[in-house]
Amino acid sequence: MSEHDFWRALGQQLRVDSIRCSSAAGSGHPTSSMSAADLMAVLLAKYLRYDFTKPENPQNDHLIFSKGHASPLLYAMYRAAGAISDEELLGYRTKGSRLEGHPTPRLPWVDVATGSLGQGLPIGVGVALAGKRLDRLPYRVWVLTGDSELAEGSMWEAFEHAAQSGLDNLTAVLDINRLGQTGETMHGWNLGYYAGRLKAIGWHTAEIDGHDLASIDAAFAEAISMTGKPSAVIARTVKGKGVEAVANKNGMHGKPVKDAEAAIRELGGRPNISVTVAKPEGTAGPHRFDALGALTLPRYEIGTKEETRKAYGDALAALGKARGDVVALDGEVSNSTYSEIFAKQSPDRYFEMYIAEQQMAAAAVGIQVRGWKPYASSFAAFWTRAHDFIRMAAISRANIKICGSHAGVSIGEDGPSQMGLEDIASFRATWSSTVLYPCDANQTARLVAQMADRDGIVYLRTTREKTPVIYSADDDFPIGGCRVLRQSPADSVTLIGAGVTVHEALEAADRLAGEGIAARVIDLYSIKPIDAAALRTAAGDTDAIVTIEDHWPEGGLGEAVLSALAGDEAQSRVVMLAVREMPASATPAEQRAAAGIDAESIVEAARVAVSRIQPASAR
Amino acid sequence: MSEHDFWRALGQQLRVDSIRCSSAAGSGHPTSSMSAADLMAVLLAKYLRYDFTKPENPQNDHLIFSKGHASPLLYAMYRAAGAISDEELLGYRTKGSRLEGHPTPRLPWVDVATGSLGQGLPIGVGVALAGKRLDRLPYRVWVLTGDSELAEGSMWEAFEHAAQSGLDNLTAVLDINRLGQTGETMHGWNLGYYAGRLKAIGWHTAEIDGHDLASIDAAFAEAISMTGKPSAVIARTVKGKGVEAVANKNGMHGKPVKDAEAAIRELGGRPNISVTVAKPEGTAGPHRFDALGALTLPRYEIGTKEETRKAYGDALAALGKARGDVVALDGEVSNSTYSEIFAKQSPDRYFEMYIAEQQMAAAAVGIQVRGWKPYASSFAAFWTRAHDFIRMAAISRANIKICGSHAGVSIGEDGPSQMGLEDIASFRATWSSTVLYPCDANQTARLVAQMADRDGIVYLRTTREKTPVIYSADDDFPIGGCRVLRQSPADSVTLIGAGVTVHEALEAADRLAGEGIAARVIDLYSIKPIDAAALRTAAGDTDAIVTIEDHWPEGGLGEAVLSALAGDEAQSRVVMLAVREMPASATPAEQRAAAGIDAESIVEAARVAVSRIQPASAR
Repeated sequence: MSEHDFWRALGQQLRVDSIRCSSAAGSGHPTSSMSAADLMAVLLAKYLRYDFTKPENPQNDHLIFSKGHASPLLYAMYRAAGAISDEELLGYRTKGSRLEGHPTPRLPWVDVATGSLGQGLPIGVGVALAGKRLDRLPYRVWVLTGDSELAEGSMWEAFEHAAQSGLDNLTAVLDINRLGQTGETMHGWNLGYYAGRLKAIGWHTAEIDGHDLASIDAAFAEAISMTGKPSAVIARTVKGKGVEAVANKNGMHGKPVKDAEAAIRELGGRPNISVTVAKPEGTAGPHRFDALGALTLPRYEIGTKEETRKAYGDALAALGKARGDVVALDGEVSNSTYSEIFAKQSPDRYFEMYIAEQQMAAAAVGIQVRGWKPYASSFAAFWTRAHDFIRMAAISRANIKICGSHAGVSIGEDGPSQMGLEDIASFRATWSSTVLYPCDANQTARLVAQMADRDGIVYLRTTREKTPVIYSADDDFPIGGCRVLRQSPADSVTLIGAGVTVHEALEAADRLAGEGIAARVIDLYSIKPIDAAALRTAAGDTDAIVTIEDHWPEGGLGEAVLSALAGDEAQSRVVMLAVREMPASATPAEQRAAAGIDAESIVEAARVAVSRIQPASAR
Repeated sequence: MSEHDFWRALGQQLRVDSIRCSSAAGSGHPTSSMSAADLMAVLLAKYLRYDFTKPENPQNDHLIFSKGHASPLLYAMYRAAGAISDEELLGYRTKGSRLEGHPTPRLPWVDVATGSLGQGLPIGVGVALAGKRLDRLPYRVWVLTGDSELAEGSMWEAFEHAAQSGLDNLTAVLDINRLGQTGETMHGWNLGYYAGRLKAIGWHTAEIDGHDLASIDAAFAEAISMTGKPSAVIARTVKGKGVEAVANKNGMHGKPVKDAEAAIRELGGRPNISVTVAKPEGTAGPHRFDALGALTLPRYEIGTKEETRKAYGDALAALGKARGDVVALDGEVSNSTYSEIFAKQSPDRYFEMYIAEQQMAAAAVGIQVRGWKPYASSFAAFWTRAHDFIRMAAISRANIKICGSHAGVSIGEDGPSQMGLEDIASFRATWSSTVLYPCDANQTARLVAQMADRDGIVYLRTTREKTPVIYSADDDFPIGGCRVLRQSPADSVTLIGAGVTVHEALEAADRLAGEGIAARVIDLYSIKPIDAAALRTAAGDTDAIVTIEDHWPEGGLGEAVLSALAGDEAQSRVVMLAVREMPASATPAEQRAAAGIDAESIVEAARVAVSRIQPASAR
């Protein structure tokens, strides 16, 4: 069989298998798979360098389906490559199968989960950055994108960053099949429109018929020969190509082909072609950065004041000295988050992502695919911009570290647009997450160090203003723990804060002591996981709990405490102090007073809670 | 004074006032204001049509500072226009002042809050769409953007949609001052780069020196004469222009000018120029769509089954018939969310936003600026994409209605990327929000109708699969209420669900009754505001509460219940059933069983809770 005949037959098999598995499942996206089948046939048979028996080979190429709904095509490729059996293919979308509706890394050949459109390409940029600047290996990153998803701004962040970084190891294959879920895309088959935009950004482009094998071959060959710029293969394709009942017809998105048997006949029946996918030739391992091994964290003197955000920067730089696998990213606010300290010390491992938080999150996900430890920082408020990327990062089982600075009303004059007031809620409600919120510089440094080897989405919240250093640099702050800062057998109320509100709680406890009310004070620096045992003890020992947080009341520290105590026999009355009205501009102290989370407000709440409890405690 | 001399003097005054107010405040962004001062001087003096005494005039132009940190410039313009006093200007950023660090609609001339970069232009697209397609008035929308924010993908969603919609009533003024917060932007003063990208999208562009008054004048004149396409004035400017100590110098972002008096002298002192801003000439009111007035909601028969998402579509269409002010938007999934029913019935009031959820949220915010009632729909999961836009919409005091369909693991086979499992947490933690989650079609219809006149961010969560119709079409479901579906004096446990879990709870209650355990069942369709009184009654009447939600445990229904009961004297033990492990593909029923939120899991949890309580209830 000639090369072209083989590709032709392979493309048809990929179509047939896409139809078969989605028909067996009773759901899925065969037509979106069929448009890209010829493109992927040529890629698999000639251009991809991948050792399916050794997915951990650092020299392997990376193939990301940004259009994750074309999973039938991806799984059909795996079967053709001999990676999965026909039986497994036909278990698509059933309970227990690794072949989920949209790809996830439960399959060893899948780097990241896709299925929320517009994310695969930005993540591919991250992998390609790792290839160029970290691993320094010649692997290529191939990203198959849909055309509907080109409406997502995140794709254009990715196109811009790829060009800016000269990622000639990245090829985007644009499957322009004209039809979205509900109708035609904005630009239909106007390939020139896409090419024009991409050229203006600095990409190499090739406009081809995505079913013409010679053109596909030539375009891929051109792409891998390109230096200094990324390449886009812009392919005019037919959705549902090869089966007349569905080809180029609206209303055929996301459903099995009606008469599967007839469709398979029309495609030429069920071949059983195997592809020997070329393995990468290189054997070199990834680049490793020099590092000291021993970690010397910054130390801050008790009684002085320091910003926890500054301690984040100091500790990150120290960590970067100790370990070569730590890298940092920032969204053009590195002089606010203090990641600039790392950037100046280790410029080779610092990534300036400009004001593109989606691309920043995606790049972190892409970089961790290759085992690096990315710390990404921005204002806590602006991480809301990347919420969908962080949600998907959890599905990718990604290990990324995120720092959100300028948390809460405590930033002061800049006003609510810059205040992170929902970040604890968002990050708590992220699967695999850890949520940390230190109150002093030494505690921050210890937590930053622990983040490195903690799996999942690990979030650290920092504060803009200087806060008192209350802990020794030798103190230990295990994730999942808390610190009881005031405690006596006479305690009648427990004050629970984290970050800035720890200091307010301490001041409140001092004032309450003057009134004869003994208050326990807990520094809940680890909000998730939470020290439920310490909270239960406090709930048993004291009649009332006051939680204080610089955050909206929903989903934050207070609700985390309630949740930890929910199933408990002995429950305290819990009073939640949180930000309830929309703040404006004011000084940090004025903000906390206005929000009712300052020492004065805590004293008042504790007083009321204790007095209301008194009669009942005579029970 | 010649026109040019006047503009020149006005520009200098805007600079001086930017310096004065930020110096008085001790914070702010004078240099980012100074770069755009000449552009805004010409706009204010010659092109803007705005009646400052009547901000509600529907014929007024709209001026949006997408670079919200340039608020000193905006407020300086207000002073020049006579809208605010010098005294108010100098109160910038102080407690109680309307002149916040970043603009908010607490000022009557500000349409929307900005300050999270990359949002003003997408919102401007929404206002311009309202002007063209809804109001049908000749007002113009002027948006001042920074250059750093051009790295945000949302800006490119906006550029694309504006061109696609032929928004010749929109002018973007790009203040290309080269310097971001930490250094040079990706493209510096490469105006051609921006022009190339914009031309490729279909914008009219003019590249000018942003300090050359004749060029500015010509570019604006050209922009307003353009038909069929939006215009971009791409202006090369100098950050800190006019004051040598800061002009075009890195490290001068976001801080007052050091020697303000010297800087003011360098700018020519303190003039006191007033501008008579031209009022709009037209007097026509906005277009009004024909409507019936009377609302006839769809009715579903008890005992049948229907998707709540379908009921959303049916009810929205009914509402659109009754009221001319209701409009709909969707992100290219209208056949899944069922907004297509509205789209087909009222195409003039339907906006296809394609797969660009950020632009969709922004367009809704822009459209509500003009008093329309936008309902925007997508999958619950994909609203995470627009989280920052919804956060900012709350700061804008926007009134928008959002529908998130395909909630929870109950979607089944598509897998976790398509499952909204954090939406309740996000929307609860949004200021001004309402969170609704109906379990049947009649309830959905009633809630959809109530959303129209409810202020703030109003969120409705719908389900993919058909659920039993259990309520009469005549039943009333006030926001803030709940429904007690099972109740007896013997109740020992309360089951609280919403949406799909209501049906699981009902089945569980039936099974528990068979075991002699009487269970109260509450349908908590209004999660925020929450019916705390009914919850307190249940907590007092029964020994245990089981909450069941198709959502992560953090920030959802369970924590909302805990929060409502937190301060209470009598507390029940609360057991929270929620999705705790990452789901994969499976049928809806298999998913709920695997997550432990099906009837069987509820029965088991209730049994354990009641048995554990028994000894104590002998107290």
